[in-house]
Amino acid sequence: MSKPLILITNDDGIVAPGIKALIEVASTFGEVVVVAPDSPQSGQGHAITLEHPLKLNKVDPFNGIEAYECSGTPVDCVKLAKNVILKGREIDLCLSGINHGANSSINVIYSGTMSAAMEASIEGIDSIGFSLLDYSFDADFTEAKKIVKNLVQKMLEKKLPDCKLLNVNIPPGKDIQGMKVCRQGNGNWVEDFQEGLDPRGQKYYWLTGKFVNFDKGDDTDIWALENGYVSIVPTGHDLTVHNSIENLKYLEK
Amino acid sequence: MSKPLILITNDDGIVAPGIKALIEVASTFGEVVVVAPDSPQSGQGHAITLEHPLKLNKVDPFNGIEAYECSGTPVDCVKLAKNVILKGREIDLCLSGINHGANSSINVIYSGTMSAAMEASIEGIDSIGFSLLDYSFDADFTEAKKIVKNLVQKMLEKKLPDCKLLNVNIPPGKDIQGMKVCRQGNGNWVEDFQEGLDPRGQKYYWLTGKFVNFDKGDDTDIWALENGYVSIVPTGHDLTVHNSIENLKYLEK
Repeated sequence: MSKPLILITNDDGIVAPGIKALIEVASTFGEVVVVAPDSPQSGQGHAITLEHPLKLNKVDPFNGIEAYECSGTPVDCVKLAKNVILKGREIDLCLSGINHGANSSINVIYSGTMSAAMEASIEGIDSIGFSLLDYSFDADFTEAKKIVKNLVQKMLEKKLPDCKLLNVNIPPGKDIQGMKVCRQGNGNWVEDFQEGLDPRGQKYYWLTGKFVNFDKGDDTDIWALENGYVSIVPTGHDLTVHNSIENLKYLEK
Repeated sequence: MSKPLILITNDDGIVAPGIKALIEVASTFGEVVVVAPDSPQSGQGHAITLEHPLKLNKVDPFNGIEAYECSGTPVDCVKLAKNVILKGREIDLCLSGINHGANSSINVIYSGTMSAAMEASIEGIDSIGFSLLDYSFDADFTEAKKIVKNLVQKMLEKKLPDCKLLNVNIPPGKDIQGMKVCRQGNGNWVEDFQEGLDPRGQKYYWLTGKFVNFDKGDDTDIWALENGYVSIVPTGHDLTVHNSIENLKYLEK
């Protein structure tokens, strides 16, 4: 069997420390190709660039690992990887991250990290988005790398049943209790905007907020992380609320 | 009972024709406030602006209807509407669109129109994203306005059961067969990039592609639209693939 081909991307940008952790682990399993944004793209969700063209440059920040920086969003990176850089080749696995900060609960919706991995999964590629709950630039990825190794090995050995994408969040610190396969917890941001005046005296608004957990369940990603476990959420892209279809038939009249 | 408060936004920008159609209909039902992007934001998905501050300007393109243009994404518009412009007021309904082009099937993931409406639904506001399958600037919204009126009336009369968001797509032309409550069809874009050289001789890539339907079902939004029906998909933001959780427990070991 030939070496597996592993695509790596992120949303914090190609020079963010987290992506190096993924590359280090993945390159022990197969051929790695990196396509990542040339600037931070946090909160870009599933944005794609339609209004203007994209630039793509071959770069070499990872000791000879094939790597490209792209002027677009994380999802653009995956589309360019599949349709241009790796055109005609089968990608065995896509890894996105390691994101600096949580992508559990509702954050999955806003996350460029998860949207990049989701884009690969829409294309039928087994994918994992990894996040470490530590925002600092010098976050310690030692424990996270063990989790990445564990899951990459399992994903390469056996395709996931009925699912193509995992949302994996890793608690900070060294005292990890284990891994929990769980559901996306029901939480949301209570938001506010920092208001101020720019240098020309014009008012601006800058998003800020606080995450609030509305979910009492012990089967959620929020619960897992609060209790020291790695959370693994099987994640899809069918947004239909299936059990509402029958109840909404009155709208047809 | 006081007049309902209806928030209107879109992703094609505040001067796109489709938003006028929504305002015309909604203002016959209640108080309308418009907060929309100051530039086209198609394909922005659930992107939010974290890296820089936002500008918000009061504008008057709609004959005295309270309106604001925002420098951010469609989701930013909804967050600013809720947390700044309408802070402390209860929003009864959020309408997004009318988008020029389809947001059925996988397009829901990329759509700024749908993401704006989804953001409102995450905040507990009943919401509808409307799209008309006609890309032309001078598209005829006559039939679409009848659909908007019908659904706004029903949504204001009775809260949706178990669901806060509808993805409504309207076929072009005058010969509409009716409305179908359906599921998100399984389709995807087969993509390509237009490649060229910019004026400085540097290579660029510009996303293009063709939609392909993989779904043979007659209960999908794709089927409804192909057969002349308006498609109505109850849409949520829990991305968990619930029936995979048990099957993936082996990953915990």
